[in-house]
Amino acid sequence: MRVAVFGASGYTGGELLRILVSHPAFTVTVITSREYAGKPVYMAHPHLKGLLSLKFVKLEEALNREFDYALLALPHGISKDVIPSLLEKGIGVVDLGADFRLKDPSLYETWYGWKHPNPELLEEAVYGLPELHRDEIRDARLVASPGCNATATILASAPLVKLGARKVLADVKVGSSEAGSKPSRGTHHPERSGAIRPYSASGHRHQVEASQELSLLVGEEVRVSMVPHSVGSVRGAFASAHAELEVDEGELWRAFARFYSNEPFVRVMQRGSYPNVKNVLGSNFADVGFASDPSLPRASGFAAIDNLMKGAAGQAIQSLNLMAGLEETTGLMYPPLSPA
Amino acid sequence: MRVAVFGASGYTGGELLRILVSHPAFTVTVITSREYAGKPVYMAHPHLKGLLSLKFVKLEEALNREFDYALLALPHGISKDVIPSLLEKGIGVVDLGADFRLKDPSLYETWYGWKHPNPELLEEAVYGLPELHRDEIRDARLVASPGCNATATILASAPLVKLGARKVLADVKVGSSEAGSKPSRGTHHPERSGAIRPYSASGHRHQVEASQELSLLVGEEVRVSMVPHSVGSVRGAFASAHAELEVDEGELWRAFARFYSNEPFVRVMQRGSYPNVKNVLGSNFADVGFASDPSLPRASGFAAIDNLMKGAAGQAIQSLNLMAGLEETTGLMYPPLSPA
Amino acid sequence: MRVAVFGASGYTGGELLRILVSHPAFTVTVITSREYAGKPVYMAHPHLKGLLSLKFVKLEEALNREFDYALLALPHGISKDVIPSLLEKGIGVVDLGADFRLKDPSLYETWYGWKHPNPELLEEAVYGLPELHRDEIRDARLVASPGCNATATILASAPLVKLGARKVLADVKVGSSEAGSKPSRGTHHPERSGAIRPYSASGHRHQVEASQELSLLVGEEVRVSMVPHSVGSVRGAFASAHAELEVDEGELWRAFARFYSNEPFVRVMQRGSYPNVKNVLGSNFADVGFASDPSLPRASGFAAIDNLMKGAAGQAIQSLNLMAGLEETTGLMYPPLSPA
Amino acid sequence: MRVAVFGASGYTGGELLRILVSHPAFTVTVITSREYAGKPVYMAHPHLKGLLSLKFVKLEEALNREFDYALLALPHGISKDVIPSLLEKGIGVVDLGADFRLKDPSLYETWYGWKHPNPELLEEAVYGLPELHRDEIRDARLVASPGCNATATILASAPLVKLGARKVLADVKVGSSEAGSKPSRGTHHPERSGAIRPYSASGHRHQVEASQELSLLVGEEVRVSMVPHSVGSVRGAFASAHAELEVDEGELWRAFARFYSNEPFVRVMQRGSYPNVKNVLGSNFADVGFASDPSLPRASGFAAIDNLMKGAAGQAIQSLNLMAGLEETTGLMYPPLSPA
Repeated sequence: MRVAVFGASGYTGGELLRILVSHPAFTVTVITSREYAGKPVYMAHPHLKGLLSLKFVKLEEALNREFDYALLALPHGISKDVIPSLLEKGIGVVDLGADFRLKDPSLYETWYGWKHPNPELLEEAVYGLPELHRDEIRDARLVASPGCNATATILASAPLVKLGARKVLADVKVGSSEAGSKPSRGTHHPERSGAIRPYSASGHRHQVEASQELSLLVGEEVRVSMVPHSVGSVRGAFASAHAELEVDEGELWRAFARFYSNEPFVRVMQRGSYPNVKNVLGSNFADVGFASDPSLPRASGFAAIDNLMKGAAGQAIQSLNLMAGLEETTGLMYPPLSPA
Repeated sequence: MRVAVFGASGYTGGELLRILVSHPAFTVTVITSREYAGKPVYMAHPHLKGLLSLKFVKLEEALNREFDYALLALPHGISKDVIPSLLEKGIGVVDLGADFRLKDPSLYETWYGWKHPNPELLEEAVYGLPELHRDEIRDARLVASPGCNATATILASAPLVKLGARKVLADVKVGSSEAGSKPSRGTHHPERSGAIRPYSASGHRHQVEASQELSLLVGEEVRVSMVPHSVGSVRGAFASAHAELEVDEGELWRAFARFYSNEPFVRVMQRGSYPNVKNVLGSNFADVGFASDPSLPRASGFAAIDNLMKGAAGQAIQSLNLMAGLEETTGLMYPPLSPA
Repeated sequence: MRVAVFGASGYTGGELLRILVSHPAFTVTVITSREYAGKPVYMAHPHLKGLLSLKFVKLEEALNREFDYALLALPHGISKDVIPSLLEKGIGVVDLGADFRLKDPSLYETWYGWKHPNPELLEEAVYGLPELHRDEIRDARLVASPGCNATATILASAPLVKLGARKVLADVKVGSSEAGSKPSRGTHHPERSGAIRPYSASGHRHQVEASQELSLLVGEEVRVSMVPHSVGSVRGAFASAHAELEVDEGELWRAFARFYSNEPFVRVMQRGSYPNVKNVLGSNFADVGFASDPSLPRASGFAAIDNLMKGAAGQAIQSLNLMAGLEETTGLMYPPLSPA
Repeated sequence: MRVAVFGASGYTGGELLRILVSHPAFTVTVITSREYAGKPVYMAHPHLKGLLSLKFVKLEEALNREFDYALLALPHGISKDVIPSLLEKGIGVVDLGADFRLKDPSLYETWYGWKHPNPELLEEAVYGLPELHRDEIRDARLVASPGCNATATILASAPLVKLGARKVLADVKVGSSEAGSKPSRGTHHPERSGAIRPYSASGHRHQVEASQELSLLVGEEVRVSMVPHSVGSVRGAFASAHAELEVDEGELWRAFARFYSNEPFVRVMQRGSYPNVKNVLGSNFADVGFASDPSLPRASGFAAIDNLMKGAAGQAIQSLNLMAGLEETTGLMYPPLSPA
């Protein structure tokens, strides 16, 4: 099956290529990049030298090529204009951007600053978190793959919500690769190395996705407030989801174990052990754990993911596997790299 | 004025020496270390080579020397047995450990596992956070200098508590130097570099200090639940103090600005800017900021400190200055090192 | 084919397991560890949770089990006593330690401090650098897999030696994982993070291996002096091999391209581009490059490897593939992880 | 004494301000920045908030102000046009750029690409390494402060040259702050974190300075070939200067100890101990050491400096102290920050 990767020169694009190079069922036939159009893969991704010999083309040129599936790692706001024509041709689409994640069109105006041109497609698009929507993804034409902070937050929170939490404070910590491959002051090495600081602290866009999905899960409104923090890691997103909930750690253990009992990529930590992004780097695993403190009272769920894998490229391929009728884990059962 | 530093070979001890080497009013005359007894300073602290020519002695030997003030950077549980004899000799003491921070003796059994032998000294000891107890520190014989996580949490939370918060969730992020100079698996470089993981997630000892002090501040019970996280920084402790409080950022700004208006070491960030441990490294400054999100609703206070300075050695000297009748900032107005 | 991994709880052991878990021809059936005997894999390697369900056994117990191949990641000086009995049973052995790398038995006394008990096996053992000894490895019973610094140095130097260099100054830079999984002051995170400092600067053991192999390559004495430096990376070994040689970069390009023209794991950089450990992390690739400066004159060869992969576990499996009659690249053609 | 800092918004500028804020004899009265003109210091240097209340002005405006000394941290090629007018007004100048470091004007065309407009000033300018030119600096109107890589290389090499070395291979390792405060792909955090790679490997500009100064030292041509490497540190430059020289470590010790016996900022390591950038961070110290290996034979000198301090701002103030008739160490005897 032929796959096109749109926006293949950034970090998420590179990670999609890394996975697909070794994938037994998919072959990358088209890759796009505005900046690298006409240049070979290794110019943008020197680590892939010798492993993939394609050249980047412009997005417009890619639309004239033939392929079976499209993975879109484009900046927010661009894929919404590209996707309709892909779907028309019968191409299955996994969009790694935000353009089709939210069900309520009005939220795009509030959180992204533009009016959504395809509200009907919003309804059709499936939120690509297989742990919540496995069956719908199998039948989908268009999958909106979740944001990395949203993925970590939802996986950390879902069992708490099942136990009754309706207000979730998601304190998230992320590595610098989450900001993408474009240099900026905030990701300049001397500034970012060793940093600990919040950003978007008055509310991060991904809390809207998380709120939508957690509410759907229990059929009641679940409010999520997210405060992401930049730390000095390169890879990794870690969500600490806190709720005011009186529940002991035995109950928490049962809730987490039950919720994730059949999940191939979610590993539940034992009581007293906590997830660490170091144990999932380079893999599609999400390690989840929990703790409670009666003093507030507080119950916390934790999730550690590789933001470029389970938080982006890995999860997108997980959905693509499902859409294509493959075993969900095909080409994704990499052990994490450790220590790294 | 002659100062003895007990437990001078660890990181906090090294930082006390670094400050005192340049301090205009104090001279270090005695330094103790079990491991380095008989050896010169630079064996434990190669960065201080040529700046201080003392040799370490054993604790027992130090007790026979004469000095005016003692700074104790000993492991928890040791200073409680040393301090009474120092006080008897009229020596002013700043204890950087936990042995005299808590007013309620029963908490030592719960949180530290031993019965406190000097409950009467607990009453006398002053919690060494000048922002809360400046005048009492001036008159104190014994100052119990706060823990680093507690310092960051209290500074981030106090204005929120003034605004009405009675339950504070303190999500703290810390660098590896907080664990001290003794190697362990958790601070082994390949394991710690790039890590993001919680520890003591069912409740950290420092939440008891924070709760005590914030309750004192408003004369009502304030509950604090603390979840510290290890990240890949070397220095730095960052507290994100979250409370369910409906308050806009204008009010928050006023509350923070008012509370810290006369504080020489607390810098309040402007609305929309957040503290970063990178901006306080090597200094005694605490940078504080705030944010609110109406969706939960949530109000957050943030504090960034250098855990070895405002979180330990710097704050201890700040108290020592006060005890000695000096200007509080004497020998402490270092600009932070940046980028570092 | 059944494989036993001796010394499986350290970093090299973990990396062997990571590769073998996905290897199509080998199955790990026995793993040893003194420290973790009786415990499941994930206790030592939490990243492998759910991917391998073996328990560690003691070395003595492993010797009673049946398997076809043994990979030894034991501390230097131990494998020399274990290997003879393995060979007697007809088991193919790849030793990742130094015990069988040197041909001249007297060098063990000089550089390792013990007299070699099996000088005849030294003669038989094949130095496991496939780029130099591919055919001999295919027929070997015992492969002595090279040290990481030696691998990088040899790969950086070989084309220079072919061009006439007989004295090579190898200035090597390495990450902290090279020191193994046991915590120490030098790899304590606050000490190692951001460090730049030499070690073994009066001559490193690996220079003897490199000298032996480069001399063999040209049938003349080649002297190598190695100065390794600890830097703040976790993974990666980088060799800068400098020789006083008048040769322009065009010639260097041809020499490097020719020497590595058929090597599946060596990628030659274009003139003016240099290798970077970041482009090989997690993979078995060695990226090599070169530069010359007429002012001295100086010619330099550069090699970047992942010390745990091409510098240890990956290279050992590369040899094992050859010994087992498999395609050399089987189970090893991982793309590097980047950015990481 | 009033000091103007030209180019004050970059890292070197920030470091000059950090030193001057606490300096007992100098007061910063003018600071320039093209990018930050009109803005307060803390916009460019948030760590200096509350410590310095100046606003940046444009370079042209600064030239109309009155001050006694000027420190220039401008991009290469700009100060050569500014300095003549400053000197005419009787202002003492320390230039931290390269425009006046080389005595031979023709080298500017070769290495910097422009013809030098003031060859007569080249003759007058004093190379600002106090360890070599202390007395001339005292009398200078114009000091050309050395490059960071050159400083480390010269300090590591000088005693070797005194012992007879005439060809020096300087393998240098540097942190990311050396590239300045402007973001770029090479210093983008995900790319630079953990990197090990050479740059300017066919000969770095600073080798010309080092060659000039080492030749002057012995009155004979000394050739220097420099290969700098980017590593993942933020601060720090480390030079490993290698020469083919048969000399034992006792002789090396004596040569280093003698050469630096009266230097306030150079600390000589004991035999078998090596410098580490971690021990000099934030300070003006240079730690130097040595090693020899008879196998090549090779003698090595090592120097660890903070590139922004002894490699830039600290060294410039050291010269300024001398020019102003002050004690050389005034305002510079900071202990290093460790661990950091």
